[in-house]
Amino acid sequence: MIDQRKLPFALEVMDLLTVDDVLVAIKDMVVRGAPLIGVTAAFGMYLAARNSRENDWCGELRRAGERLVSGRPTAVNLKYAVDLAMEEVDLAGSRERMIQQLFHMAVRLAEDEVNRCRKIGEHGLPLIGEIHGRKGSTVNILTHCNAGWLACVDYGTATAPVYLAHDRGIPVHVWVDETRPRNQGARLTAYELGEHGVPHTVITDNAGGLLMQQGIVDMVIVGSDRTTRTGDVVNKIGTYLKALAAHDNRVPFFVALPSSSIDMKMAEGNRTEIENRDGQEVASVEGWDDSAGKVSTVRILKEKTPVANPGFDITPARLVTGLITEKGICAATEEDIMSLFGKPSPTCR
Amino acid sequence: MIDQRKLPFALEVMDLLTVDDVLVAIKDMVVRGAPLIGVTAAFGMYLAARNSRENDWCGELRRAGERLVSGRPTAVNLKYAVDLAMEEVDLAGSRERMIQQLFHMAVRLAEDEVNRCRKIGEHGLPLIGEIHGRKGSTVNILTHCNAGWLACVDYGTATAPVYLAHDRGIPVHVWVDETRPRNQGARLTAYELGEHGVPHTVITDNAGGLLMQQGIVDMVIVGSDRTTRTGDVVNKIGTYLKALAAHDNRVPFFVALPSSSIDMKMAEGNRTEIENRDGQEVASVEGWDDSAGKVSTVRILKEKTPVANPGFDITPARLVTGLITEKGICAATEEDIMSLFGKPSPTCR
Repeated sequence: MIDQRKLPFALEVMDLLTVDDVLVAIKDMVVRGAPLIGVTAAFGMYLAARNSRENDWCGELRRAGERLVSGRPTAVNLKYAVDLAMEEVDLAGSRERMIQQLFHMAVRLAEDEVNRCRKIGEHGLPLIGEIHGRKGSTVNILTHCNAGWLACVDYGTATAPVYLAHDRGIPVHVWVDETRPRNQGARLTAYELGEHGVPHTVITDNAGGLLMQQGIVDMVIVGSDRTTRTGDVVNKIGTYLKALAAHDNRVPFFVALPSSSIDMKMAEGNRTEIENRDGQEVASVEGWDDSAGKVSTVRILKEKTPVANPGFDITPARLVTGLITEKGICAATEEDIMSLFGKPSPTCR
Repeated sequence: MIDQRKLPFALEVMDLLTVDDVLVAIKDMVVRGAPLIGVTAAFGMYLAARNSRENDWCGELRRAGERLVSGRPTAVNLKYAVDLAMEEVDLAGSRERMIQQLFHMAVRLAEDEVNRCRKIGEHGLPLIGEIHGRKGSTVNILTHCNAGWLACVDYGTATAPVYLAHDRGIPVHVWVDETRPRNQGARLTAYELGEHGVPHTVITDNAGGLLMQQGIVDMVIVGSDRTTRTGDVVNKIGTYLKALAAHDNRVPFFVALPSSSIDMKMAEGNRTEIENRDGQEVASVEGWDDSAGKVSTVRILKEKTPVANPGFDITPARLVTGLITEKGICAATEEDIMSLFGKPSPTCR
């Protein structure tokens, strides 16, 4: 796995050989991003199987699953992957068969994520193409945080339409919000766009409003941690401010997401309990110290200054132009969402 | 002068003994904030006078003034202070008299700034008192950047109503935007509020929208670099996003400013040319390195990542609840502004 804690200062690949390695990688955020965590956990279960003893493989797998889930208790994809794995364990009958099944399951899960993101990209691509057709020059897209290939195995969600447009020769340029406090935009999104050769410019989270006032943002695409069935979007803190600015300047504001992140049970986004994260994330900034030649952390506040660090905000559906999903684009309304996702699709019957 | 570059990590007072000391202090941002720069320049002219030679004091003062103005060519208050000083020089007649006059002028300029800010505070105070009367508990005020006593000799503009409310026993709490890229909120506003004993909490610039959604912001008060005669407000980048969020959540959004910063010649804020500042401010963050025991700078981006760093944005008048000035509060409309400031006040006739 790429050690995402070191990016963008070093590209280090870590070998994970045991379920303990995987647990540490998930806990310490070597890997991050809901889809990637799920896939990593699936491979963790495969490693647990491969390292299990002949006489207690079933018990060992159960304990491995419990430990992985406890690593990040709120990660839905992690729990989902472990539950899937345990179904395979229950069905396998033999240790050898289980190892094989878990390997195939993990590979399939990874491929599913990639396919889902590619489909999000294909559905979002015409939106970019349409703007390009209209203006005839580079399409400027603003994004917040990291919902890219680093988080999603490949393509990403918010970035998938961008990568596809770039690959197909549509000139695009991305305004990358640095995304305080953890700077996932500055550190990860800028890195992965750069690696892919997509032109981009990093800005502070404060700057996007002005850029929209100046007419140099053609559209906004962000990811989503949770979308309610009425189309409210819970995403990284600061997303709401960009949605307001987009609305005020008639800039289309799209949210790219896998349909699995739509919470059909929740109607109003403001019912969401917002995680208050460690204040250290606000008080300190990690980066590369050129004079010391290493990664360092500096404190930007006087010691003991009170801080608050809410992790997410809620973008009300009225500010969302559309949802880009693997099944197509829909309006951020209960009617549209329910008609696209509310019932099992014909192929599932 | 307090060396503001060292805050909040060290309170160091620098003695400025010559006009060269003053020039360096202004250029290197030992002092910052329009009012403080003006007052510092005035004392710089006094120092130039005191250090001048008997046979060329007039020429020396002229050269000192030119050098000071060139230190930060766009600082209106600096030019104003130097022009005032040169009038005194022209009138003085003798070197001794000039020294005395320039000293009195500098002291008067400082007192004027303090009085102006105190009046802004007195006009803003009832707004806070009214909210406190209504809710009966602590008034939560959000501010952006630093428009406090560090920038204004005393009281500040945006902070003046807060300090007065606190001093008069009205319970207040300030949400302090860290204000990337230079973190003036985290470094300066939090520091000066703390020194004055005002309860406060530092947040990322991304967080204010959520706090308003949650109903825990009662009002916003910000400063202004320039206000047009129609009430558009040019202020630190990111101000516009907070104004949008305040409007969307029916939170009163006030701008505190000395009337000298109203640009009577400009109607529309979007005509303002926005300064694009050094990208290093975005690429790097300065703070205290606890392990090294010193101030350090860390780079948060991969080397050569493209960055943009616009310094200001424009908050349209329609989002502004009112302007708090030393002459009173007025609506952010051409009619109200012209009736309060458009003609010389009776005492000036």
